[in-house]
Amino acid sequence: MRHAELRERVFEANLGLVEAGLVVLSFGNASGIDRDARIVAIKPSGVDYATLRPEDIVLVSLDDGRVVEGTGRPSSDTPTHLVLYRSFPEVGGVVHTHSVHAAAWAQARREIPCLGTTHADHFHGPVPVTRWLTDAEIQTDYEAHTGRVIVERFAEAGIDPTDVPACLDAGHGPFTWGATPHEALVNAIVLEQVARQAIHTLAIEPGTGPIPPSLLDKHFRRKHGPAAYYGQPASVDQPRP
Amino acid sequence: MRHAELRERVFEANLGLVEAGLVVLSFGNASGIDRDARIVAIKPSGVDYATLRPEDIVLVSLDDGRVVEGTGRPSSDTPTHLVLYRSFPEVGGVVHTHSVHAAAWAQARREIPCLGTTHADHFHGPVPVTRWLTDAEIQTDYEAHTGRVIVERFAEAGIDPTDVPACLDAGHGPFTWGATPHEALVNAIVLEQVARQAIHTLAIEPGTGPIPPSLLDKHFRRKHGPAAYYGQPASVDQPRP
Amino acid sequence: MRHAELRERVFEANLGLVEAGLVVLSFGNASGIDRDARIVAIKPSGVDYATLRPEDIVLVSLDDGRVVEGTGRPSSDTPTHLVLYRSFPEVGGVVHTHSVHAAAWAQARREIPCLGTTHADHFHGPVPVTRWLTDAEIQTDYEAHTGRVIVERFAEAGIDPTDVPACLDAGHGPFTWGATPHEALVNAIVLEQVARQAIHTLAIEPGTGPIPPSLLDKHFRRKHGPAAYYGQPASVDQPRP
Amino acid sequence: MRHAELRERVFEANLGLVEAGLVVLSFGNASGIDRDARIVAIKPSGVDYATLRPEDIVLVSLDDGRVVEGTGRPSSDTPTHLVLYRSFPEVGGVVHTHSVHAAAWAQARREIPCLGTTHADHFHGPVPVTRWLTDAEIQTDYEAHTGRVIVERFAEAGIDPTDVPACLDAGHGPFTWGATPHEALVNAIVLEQVARQAIHTLAIEPGTGPIPPSLLDKHFRRKHGPAAYYGQPASVDQPRP
Repeated sequence: MRHAELRERVFEANLGLVEAGLVVLSFGNASGIDRDARIVAIKPSGVDYATLRPEDIVLVSLDDGRVVEGTGRPSSDTPTHLVLYRSFPEVGGVVHTHSVHAAAWAQARREIPCLGTTHADHFHGPVPVTRWLTDAEIQTDYEAHTGRVIVERFAEAGIDPTDVPACLDAGHGPFTWGATPHEALVNAIVLEQVARQAIHTLAIEPGTGPIPPSLLDKHFRRKHGPAAYYGQPASVDQPRP
Repeated sequence: MRHAELRERVFEANLGLVEAGLVVLSFGNASGIDRDARIVAIKPSGVDYATLRPEDIVLVSLDDGRVVEGTGRPSSDTPTHLVLYRSFPEVGGVVHTHSVHAAAWAQARREIPCLGTTHADHFHGPVPVTRWLTDAEIQTDYEAHTGRVIVERFAEAGIDPTDVPACLDAGHGPFTWGATPHEALVNAIVLEQVARQAIHTLAIEPGTGPIPPSLLDKHFRRKHGPAAYYGQPASVDQPRP
Repeated sequence: MRHAELRERVFEANLGLVEAGLVVLSFGNASGIDRDARIVAIKPSGVDYATLRPEDIVLVSLDDGRVVEGTGRPSSDTPTHLVLYRSFPEVGGVVHTHSVHAAAWAQARREIPCLGTTHADHFHGPVPVTRWLTDAEIQTDYEAHTGRVIVERFAEAGIDPTDVPACLDAGHGPFTWGATPHEALVNAIVLEQVARQAIHTLAIEPGTGPIPPSLLDKHFRRKHGPAAYYGQPASVDQPRP
Repeated sequence: MRHAELRERVFEANLGLVEAGLVVLSFGNASGIDRDARIVAIKPSGVDYATLRPEDIVLVSLDDGRVVEGTGRPSSDTPTHLVLYRSFPEVGGVVHTHSVHAAAWAQARREIPCLGTTHADHFHGPVPVTRWLTDAEIQTDYEAHTGRVIVERFAEAGIDPTDVPACLDAGHGPFTWGATPHEALVNAIVLEQVARQAIHTLAIEPGTGPIPPSLLDKHFRRKHGPAAYYGQPASVDQPRP
């Protein structure tokens, strides 16, 4: 079997969605990429997490989405993942969930403002929300267009996907990404936490505004980039959960 | 013992209610039908899930509700299940719960609008709510009338119970159904998730309207009907959880 | 050891509080009574549930609260339990918690209206809330006065404690009771569920009023009194969880 | 290995954060102090709780924060802990979390009013919130300033940190403390419970005011100080969870 390690990592990230309580039934999916081989590994469509095995992870071509290895049909959201991998070259893993609180923001079509340092530690600014797809975009290549409006939103607003590794798909739910499938999972976990804290914050004080820009920068830079000092020096080549 | 497989499936669906966190104590019940034999299998009344065994599942006649096999008294909600089986011929399983968020919508007597694709994946439009029963309907054949107002609501609004496999009973809680007991369970799990997401969505943005009709159609048809492409082709004769 | 069975039942009811997620740390307590012996068995004060054993349950006199058997100090809420046992002769078990949603209603000093059948199945009308204690009542015999204002509230409003086996102590939390410690536990579990459903219901529709009286009667009488038909006939001498 | 018992207690308090559901991923940290040796033991930075061992706990100097023993980098929040130990001499343990409901109050920059006895049992008055840090305070010695604004807030308002063993850091999250790491953990658990109850209370009744001062005093003094009568007499030298 080729790409055993990639499959294993993608398998682990998919199980992590269940352990973190982000998915029910067969909702959600995680993928990872081998950029040299131009291969994406992704969860099969509609398969129960309880019976999922590493060998069930499907390998598809980054270029045209054809199944390269695997007996199952890949996740129906595969074209969305592929668009994100093609457009965001730093991305090594993508996660999609319908996690309750992040999906609520997506359904309300409101970006999640940065109301605190839990948010600032992982997302350098508000988590954006896409526009609605047009009827034409829904009817043809729906899943690919779902990815394209994310890319469009980041381009329009000049957001670096490394600075804000998450987007809310309008009326649908969150997509997150990272350097690895594990990092995409971590960002999905934090996004759900942040979405939940933000709902409660606005219930307590409806007019709460974002934290000061200097505090946002401080917390994001504690964890990301050359001046980071969070975590262990020995773990720089490891995802820091 | 007759109908061992039906009992087993109904037993599993009842346990699934507990595993999914939809019930506490002995609340809730799941049933299944053998249409050829005109037999409905249902949870016994007021029995703790922790001690429930497949052989405790009671078999009753679809036609008159008499116990055909089993030592216990069937669920007090049995007449509601029977009305649904008689009126909705495609239904193979029925589930009733008092799950917190779906029951809150039933208590508020508000239909759950389709605010996102989690909803659209399983329910093709809003999840309706019944009218109040009259005092006469409450005093005589209460449980049968509970089923009849569900059927009445679907008939009035011209809703196909296969398109929207759920209804909120006013001031009470949700009933869901499906082709099998397992599918009815899945719909109960998704309905609770959808009810919870909708409460949070309206807290964030009180004026949130339903998703566009084209998006509703797209998601429902990805999973249901001849053009479905979600899940594995090999699993068409299996419920897709 | 005397009263081994009573201790065991009280022990089980205390553990049930933890299993149902109604308590954290050493909060909360359950008790039971032997009316012939005029002995109340109750949880020791401030003891961690993880290390609690049946032999730690303390026996006190119904008449004067003195410890009759046991090495520990009884719960600091013991005088409240004793007042309820003395004033409500049908009561065989009492439970006190700070469960999140019921405590929120107690803190808001609002009775919980009967918004649905989950409520009506166990409480025949709104769950009342006490008045504030006076400063004098707080300073002397605080815990006994906590019980007395519950009794006062039921007397004033003409509520039968068998019909509504629960009260919210203003600014504090719920007390529930029943024919046995297990039934008091069941009522505490249902009260928390009902309190949570009611909060969500009012968030969806702030003006939601109580269910019709005929529906309230129907559901309460399905489960209580001579015309009850919920549960198994063989289980009439058992608490029906 | 020196200070094995201190490490063990700090290790246990850190694991307690996970068991109580107060942290996800590697968020949060607990520390403890040996005042005679002027040594603080604290969680290493960014290490997963699942792999944390007692020997990973890092020992630092109370006076200058230098690592005295341990191979890892101490928590990035160490300077905050040190300021609290230096300014509050009765404190033996400190805990920091981003627990959802307490963090929501911190993000809303609203003190948590004392709405009930769960609060009054542990915190003698509202749980205060700090001011924003200035840009200069954020850019230089951020973590030490985070501790200083807590100390400043208590001094300004004349609050004894033994009476109110918790503070909300604006836009960030809660810090709690106690005589031991375990007691700091207990206060973090109760604070999250109290924060959650308060959000629901204000949803039910937005105008809810604090409980009467006499009730606040009564409950706090039942558990703290010379007149305490909660818990077991034999356990006075033990933290009472």
